[in-house]
Amino acid sequence: MSAIRRREAQVSFVGAGPGDPELLTIRALQRLQSARVVLHDALVPREILGLVPPDVRLISVGKRAGRHSMPQDRINTLLVRLARRGHRLVRLKGGDPAIFGRLAEEVSALKEAGVSYEVVPGITAASAAAAATGISLTLRGKARRVQFVTGHAEDGSDFDPVASGLCDPHVTSAIYMARKAAPKIQAGLLSAGWSGEAQALIVGNAGRADEVQIRTRLDALSRSLAALPRETAVILLLGAAIRGETRERAKPLNVPTAVHCPFENMTVPGRSRVKIP
Amino acid sequence: MSAIRRREAQVSFVGAGPGDPELLTIRALQRLQSARVVLHDALVPREILGLVPPDVRLISVGKRAGRHSMPQDRINTLLVRLARRGHRLVRLKGGDPAIFGRLAEEVSALKEAGVSYEVVPGITAASAAAAATGISLTLRGKARRVQFVTGHAEDGSDFDPVASGLCDPHVTSAIYMARKAAPKIQAGLLSAGWSGEAQALIVGNAGRADEVQIRTRLDALSRSLAALPRETAVILLLGAAIRGETRERAKPLNVPTAVHCPFENMTVPGRSRVKIP
Repeated sequence: MSAIRRREAQVSFVGAGPGDPELLTIRALQRLQSARVVLHDALVPREILGLVPPDVRLISVGKRAGRHSMPQDRINTLLVRLARRGHRLVRLKGGDPAIFGRLAEEVSALKEAGVSYEVVPGITAASAAAAATGISLTLRGKARRVQFVTGHAEDGSDFDPVASGLCDPHVTSAIYMARKAAPKIQAGLLSAGWSGEAQALIVGNAGRADEVQIRTRLDALSRSLAALPRETAVILLLGAAIRGETRERAKPLNVPTAVHCPFENMTVPGRSRVKIP
Repeated sequence: MSAIRRREAQVSFVGAGPGDPELLTIRALQRLQSARVVLHDALVPREILGLVPPDVRLISVGKRAGRHSMPQDRINTLLVRLARRGHRLVRLKGGDPAIFGRLAEEVSALKEAGVSYEVVPGITAASAAAAATGISLTLRGKARRVQFVTGHAEDGSDFDPVASGLCDPHVTSAIYMARKAAPKIQAGLLSAGWSGEAQALIVGNAGRADEVQIRTRLDALSRSLAALPRETAVILLLGAAIRGETRERAKPLNVPTAVHCPFENMTVPGRSRVKIP
């Protein structure tokens, strides 16, 4: 493992979280505010890019599922080149860089080039979806595991809900990029013996102002997902933790709430000085 | 699903993250600074409790694995009672409240009592461990799933690594509270055909100043874990994402780095005003 020295790292991989600026970590905000160049994914919303000081160079490197405006090789090369120029570099990725963020490819390129890096974790979409809906992804005795699965197969292969472990009754599954896989998930779980009445929870744009929550039955899953606009980022939650909530009614649309700059009114109390004892 | 109105919620469940104050979300910090009462788990370190203004009442409700200083029923009752008194209440939990945080029990009590709540997500220990070691929990084509599993069985039952899905070659597993389960994991994976040379990564106190990283072989897993102090919170990482790093050497101890209060020098640039277009 390469030593990862925080403040000295030439490149900071920073998790942007689900898109709400208040759900950035404090360290992520610090890195954005002290960068010289920020390379960001297309999925990072402008509310977060707006936190970067105006004199900082912002470079979008695209990266939506199935639509890469810049190939991975070029991103790697660009990272190395800018780091060698001595720029303080932030590589900003949606959610958590370590979860469906293709971190490994870029880290590998930096290591080969001898460029130091650090990783600043972010709130992943499944955590944001759980928080938004108020559910726990784990339940004592009922859901002792939680798994994050991608519904988007890079190699074009079909999504297999059974092989992906979705059928285990003791697991909560959060499926990222669930849209294309939804018909397979619905058919696969029904033929594996799940009831058509099994509950599923769809969270679109989790943690953003335009968040959408849809509770649906398994037999209506594809239809419910198809009703969402194409550009909505979708997390699908399945399992005992969801079924435990069945007394309650579907809530099709969350009323958008205003997002304010989070730290303008923040006070630093006298006790906030942090020391290692 | 109950409507969760942010600023109006009587109780805020707040994720404290892995323990480093800089890994709190901005919203978590806001909630801590505007609370009247904070009920916190024993695992939340004093660096984070130190961010709460001095006039705020701090109540420790214990909760370490196997050692509850306050039974769950009493915590529930206390939450409801304090909320009804009109206190702005924060229920501070280590990591992410929705992942091994026993959120459901407390939410259920609040719902029954008609008390409104919100959940502020936190960085879960597995994300912190991944960031600290620089690995990606998912790998294109190799690790399309990541799962978080608890090694601590509430009902005293034995941990079964096969039933817990640890053997799937395409999954990355992060085992929380792995200490007691380590001998079972080692024996179970070896008898399931894993090589004794398979790599495992142990991260103790991930994201804290006293963080420890140990890379070990599967056949030395129990011994490596047993060498850690009993009070170290342990995350164990297993799977293809870990094996992909085998060229590198073990790094037994991370040099502690100083943690500074993160927002004292934070500037709010002109562009940081966040508006929903």
